[in-house]
This record gives sequence, structure tokens and C-alpha cells, in this order.
Amino acid sequence: MAKYIAINAGSSSLKFQLFDMPSEEVLTKGIVERIGFDHSIFTISVNGKNHTEMMHIPNHTAAVTILLSKLTDLNIIHSLDEIDGVGHRVVHGGEIFNDSVLITDKVLEQLEKLSELAPLHNPANIVGIKTFRKVLPNVPTVAVFDTAFHQTMPEQSFLYSLPYDYYKKYGIRKYGFHGTSHKYVSERAAVLLGRPLEQLRLISCHLGNGASIAAIEGGKSIDTSMGFTPLAGLAMGTRSGDIDPALLPYIMEKTGKSAEEVIEVLNKQSGLLGISGLSSDLRDITEAAKEGNERAKIALELFADRIHKYLGTYAARMSGVDAIIFTAGIGENSIDVRERVLKGLEFMGVYWDPALNQIRAQEAFINYPHSPVKVLVIPTNEEVMIARDIQRLVK
Amino acid sequence: MAKYIAINAGSSSLKFQLFDMPSEEVLTKGIVERIGFDHSIFTISVNGKNHTEMMHIPNHTAAVTILLSKLTDLNIIHSLDEIDGVGHRVVHGGEIFNDSVLITDKVLEQLEKLSELAPLHNPANIVGIKTFRKVLPNVPTVAVFDTAFHQTMPEQSFLYSLPYDYYKKYGIRKYGFHGTSHKYVSERAAVLLGRPLEQLRLISCHLGNGASIAAIEGGKSIDTSMGFTPLAGLAMGTRSGDIDPALLPYIMEKTGKSAEEVIEVLNKQSGLLGISGLSSDLRDITEAAKEGNERAKIALELFADRIHKYLGTYAARMSGVDAIIFTAGIGENSIDVRERVLKGLEFMGVYWDPALNQIRAQEAFINYPHSPVKVLVIPTNEEVMIARDIQRLVK
Repeated sequence: MAKYIAINAGSSSLKFQLFDMPSEEVLTKGIVERIGFDHSIFTISVNGKNHTEMMHIPNHTAAVTILLSKLTDLNIIHSLDEIDGVGHRVVHGGEIFNDSVLITDKVLEQLEKLSELAPLHNPANIVGIKTFRKVLPNVPTVAVFDTAFHQTMPEQSFLYSLPYDYYKKYGIRKYGFHGTSHKYVSERAAVLLGRPLEQLRLISCHLGNGASIAAIEGGKSIDTSMGFTPLAGLAMGTRSGDIDPALLPYIMEKTGKSAEEVIEVLNKQSGLLGISGLSSDLRDITEAAKEGNERAKIALELFADRIHKYLGTYAARMSGVDAIIFTAGIGENSIDVRERVLKGLEFMGVYWDPALNQIRAQEAFINYPHSPVKVLVIPTNEEVMIARDIQRLVK
Repeated sequence: MAKYIAINAGSSSLKFQLFDMPSEEVLTKGIVERIGFDHSIFTISVNGKNHTEMMHIPNHTAAVTILLSKLTDLNIIHSLDEIDGVGHRVVHGGEIFNDSVLITDKVLEQLEKLSELAPLHNPANIVGIKTFRKVLPNVPTVAVFDTAFHQTMPEQSFLYSLPYDYYKKYGIRKYGFHGTSHKYVSERAAVLLGRPLEQLRLISCHLGNGASIAAIEGGKSIDTSMGFTPLAGLAMGTRSGDIDPALLPYIMEKTGKSAEEVIEVLNKQSGLLGISGLSSDLRDITEAAKEGNERAKIALELFADRIHKYLGTYAARMSGVDAIIFTAGIGENSIDVRERVLKGLEFMGVYWDPALNQIRAQEAFINYPHSPVKVLVIPTNEEVMIARDIQRLVK
């Protein structure tokens, strides 16, 4: 029996989840928001109820200190000695990390170097790691990477068709993201299907505000829609996904923006938000489309069309598919998107049941029993993957 | 009975083909190369034999004048009066032209405006048009666009997931190219299949030094792999196809190049050439791969993998496919690429016959008779499409 905390640190936020292992029981979870700003918000769940407090939390050290004192104050644990390990989500592991890793000074150094590949995310993850190492110096710490699961991709999938030197010199290749989620749902799918993961060809659709799809063969990611960064692939809440690369200088010239500023537009003002002009939230778009808003309708069609096409893409990639999995906010909850995405895939053996599809946020098969390709909804759980990796690595 | 010339004018070249219509007999064809350089080359076929001459051809007007005098000198025609129409390949027709058009002063003006969208190609096409109008002022002239066939794409296919204003203000959308070729082979496929084009779902693979794939439903292009420019989509001889757009500023920073210079690398030093470091010519790559060159092997795998995946993508797009067509240099001639591309598509009803696949540059079915999805090799013929459009429009 052991207790582990799973941490997801952003630049001004810190999500936490405390696990009892190996039972995988969640003892508490919560989030610290607006770290370093006025009116920081601390939210923690006690016996299933959220307690929220406004306070001043000037930095991550303060956030961690408050979090730890709350854990004992609220009697969730009796002493900090009960915490046997801390696991951190880290966005980018580059080509160095194809698995989670116990953090040492050397690992921290490597992570710092990788920040160049993920300047928006890794630095915040590293601050989280350093803070816990400072506050709980004797507790082992683990890093769990969004990219690690995709390190099994073969060259034909991860290489861009660019000068080969760009790969060797600058690390330019497809890394892929959401790996912890894709891994979780693929393992869970094998359990639900009652078949060994090694024998399965799965397409995992992680559809949240960020969205990616992975082709998973025998439990290994062999292709995925995100790329060097999480901008590539599908249309997302605010991200463009793939566009003709030649558009960049054209947009720069037309708008007077720098390359970085255009990428900022592609990351933050595109996707559902860009097309609809309304919102990055699929629920708002679906609502507006129902009310007849034309651009919301197009946004929805385009969003679903890209996912739909990737199902064909990755079925071809694996010479067929045994099961399709939907997960994350939209994948778990949008009946409408799943309908649009699944329509017309009978040619590849997908027979889904509109009645079974009327579910949200629960594990379920939504295919007809006779369908050669199974279709599953599986709520993701990246936190439990972190807890499991802490357990595996701190032993 | 009428005689029409089909013209494809580049910045320093001019390809021509003289047709007798409606028989579609090719009376002669040839190419003027190195226009404006020392040692220009004039090649013309007479009774199936190529005659080549070195001479000084300072500009397009000189090229056209020489071409026309050769036609009478070599007794291919008796008088220039026999020429009833001239048709020009024009790369970009924007959203203005969804069909070929008889050229007027107004049309020429519109073409000039469209040059912004295709600065590498349209200006040369326009020079060709103007030259013929000057030299043969009484002969009707027609423009045939690479983009026109794709104007039937619905918004969900042609819109990028960018701020909607970019489409409205700057014309930023997917246009698609190789339309004349995709149209030709799809019409030809319907004839060979003995079924009405209106009932067919076709995937057309135009694989040359430039390469694109189109999803053609009921004779209409509904999606295609190239985009705003011919850079997007597949990996090609020297073009990258799609990459993560966020790579642009990263490459700029690493190499010190401007955005335009990076796009130049993506257009001219990427694709097969970039990965292999050897050649942009698939034949060289195939040879080198056979001899064990590792990077040539990867280039070949990556090249084929992208095409293979698009077959799944577009099958999903059309809820299945009736026939797959291979055309253009590589599509017509590379037995190896067709093998790699077609392998493992049984899940979507593609059963191809390795024995029948041993053909080059001829019309042929290469599927097993029982295959639900037919697979055809069809040599493309963009020139005859130009001749047909002249015939249709000059009446």
C-alpha cells in the first residue's frame, strides 16, 4: 500500500490527484489556478465535494506548500510521510524518453534541454518538478511524457519529407502527443474486448480541446496525427491542424504578422473558433448549428470530416482495424460528433448502433454485436497512468 | 473537322500538341526549351520521329513564330489558316473559373489578378496566351485550368480551419491542382468500367514529380490532397507535402532563412530528394533502395505510405470506393510503388493481382476479377482535354 500524487503543472496552474495504490482509489483531487496572479483559486475535493478558496498564491512553491498542508488539515492523510511518490506529467520527452522515468539531476538537465521543443509547456512542467523536489526532498519523483508512447513509431511515420539533415541536426520529426491517454484507452480497450492487446489494431481518438488520433498496433503507437508540436493534424478548438505550409508566408504578407505571430493565430484563433467566429467550445458550436448558424454548421462538418477521414487513413495504415475508441471531453460526451464521424464506414466493417451511441462519459460499446469493427467510448484517465508509473518506477 | 493546338507554357519552355478534331489524332507535338537562354532547343515530332534543333530563341514570341513556321515548313499543315483554335493550360483559375473559358480581354485581366495565387506559374501561362493572341489574332483562344475541376469541392473540404476572414479577404482555401488530369482519367475509367461516371466513387492518384490524389464522386472532385498551392499533401519528388505548420518558424530560427526561403526548401529540396539526399527521381531512388541504400529505402517507404494512407482517407470520405486509378509518370510506370501502395487494402475490398500489375504506360485493370474495388492504370492525357475544351468552346 502506498500513496502517490499525480501532478499536471501549467504556467499558472497545478492539477493534482492523490492515489492509494495498488487499489487506484482516488483519495482526493483538485486544482490550483491563477498562481502568481491576484485572487488565486484553490479547489480540492473532499468526500466527493469540491471546496474552493480564494487566496493569494504567489508562486508554485506556495501552491505546493498549501496543497500539502491542506492534505493533512483536511485529514486526507495524517502526515506527509505517507506520500511515497510524486509523478509529473511532462509534455515533451523528445527522442530521449520512450518511457516514464525516475527523476534525477541528470534527467532534470535533459528536461531543460528539451524545453526548446516545447517552449509553451515543458518549462512549467519543470517548475512543478523542482518545487516538489524542494518541498518533499526525500520523496521519489517520476516524469510521465505525452510523447513517450509514440516513440515506437517507425521512421516512415515519424520522418517528415524534409531535408534529412533537419532531423539529424535539429530533431525535426513527428513526436506525437496525448500518448498517456492513447495508451490508457488502448489498454482498457483490450480488457473490454477480452483480447490480448498484442493482437489488436486500434484507432484511438482523443478528442478534447486539443485533439489527436493514433494508430495502435499490438499495443504500440505506429502513427499519430499530431506532429512536431500539438498544432498538427485535426482541426481543434482553437488550433488549425494541418494547412498548406506555403500559406505561412502568404498570411505573413497579407496580415503583416511575423511567422511566430501567424503560428499564434494558428494555435489560438483557428479551429472551431476561427471558422465559426463564435467559440472554441464544441458545445456552443453544436448549439449554434442547431439554431441554423451557417458558419457553426461548417465548423462542425469540417471538424468531424477530418476525424472521419483519419479513421480511413489509419485503417489503411494498419491494413484494417479491430476497434475504434473515443475518449476525452468531446469523444466521451458528444453524441453528435461520434455520429458524424462514424457515418458511412460500413465499407471498412464499422456498424455502429445509434441507440447505443446515446451515452456520455462512461465505458460502453456502441457498435452492433455483429460489427467486425468494435466501437468503444472509454473515459480517459491520464492520472491513473501516472500513479501506475510511479508505482512501477519507485520500487 | 478542325485543328487545335494545345499549349503548356512555362517561364522558359513551351510544350505544344496539334490535334485534328474530332478524331483526336495528334498531328504533331514537341517542346521549345531554354527560351531566353543561349542554346535554346526546339523539338518537334514528325511522323513519330523527334527532330531536334539548337537555335537562339530570345523570347516566347520568337518561340511561337518559329513553331508556326515549322508547322508549314514541315508540311504538317499547309497554311496557318488551318488552325481553328489554341488552348492554354493555366495553373490557377481561383474561384472565378470552374470550367475552361474562351479568352477575352476581360478574362486576361482576371488571369493577371490570379497571378498572386500562383506567382510561379500563372505569369508564364499568361505570356503564352498573349503571344498566341498577338501572332494569331483571329484564332480563338481557350484557357484550361488545373484548378477548375476541383471547384466542386464542398466547403468542408476546401476551407482551412483558419480564421474565416482569411478565406473571405485573402482567398485562402484549398484549390487543388492536376484537375485536368484527374478529370481525364476519371472519365476514361467510367468508359473502361462500362458504368456511368455519375454512379462512381473514384480515387485518382496522379503520381508524377508533382503528385496529388483526388476523391471523385459522381464525376465531381469532392476532395484533393493539394491545397492552396501544389506544395501540400503527398511527399513528392522535391516537395515536402504536409508538415506541421509550427515547423516553419522553428526552421527559420535554426537555419536563419526567411519564411520564403524555407518554403523554397520545402518546394525544391524536400520530398524524395530531401530524405534520400540522392535524387528527386523515383527511378534513382528505387534503384538505390535495391542496392541497399538505407535513406533511399526510407524515402520510398514514406512516399508510398502517404499515398497508401490517402486511399483509406478518401475511401472514408466517399463511404467506400468503386475504383482506384493510377496515372502520370510514377503511377503509370512504377510497378513497385503501385505494389507498396496497394498492399493491405483487402479490408476495404481491394484485391489486386501482382501479375497484372507488371505493366507500364498502358490502360489496364490490375485487380483480380472478383475484387469489389477495381484498380486501373490509365495514362493521362491533359492535352486531349485541352483540345476537347477548345472544340466545345469555340463553337
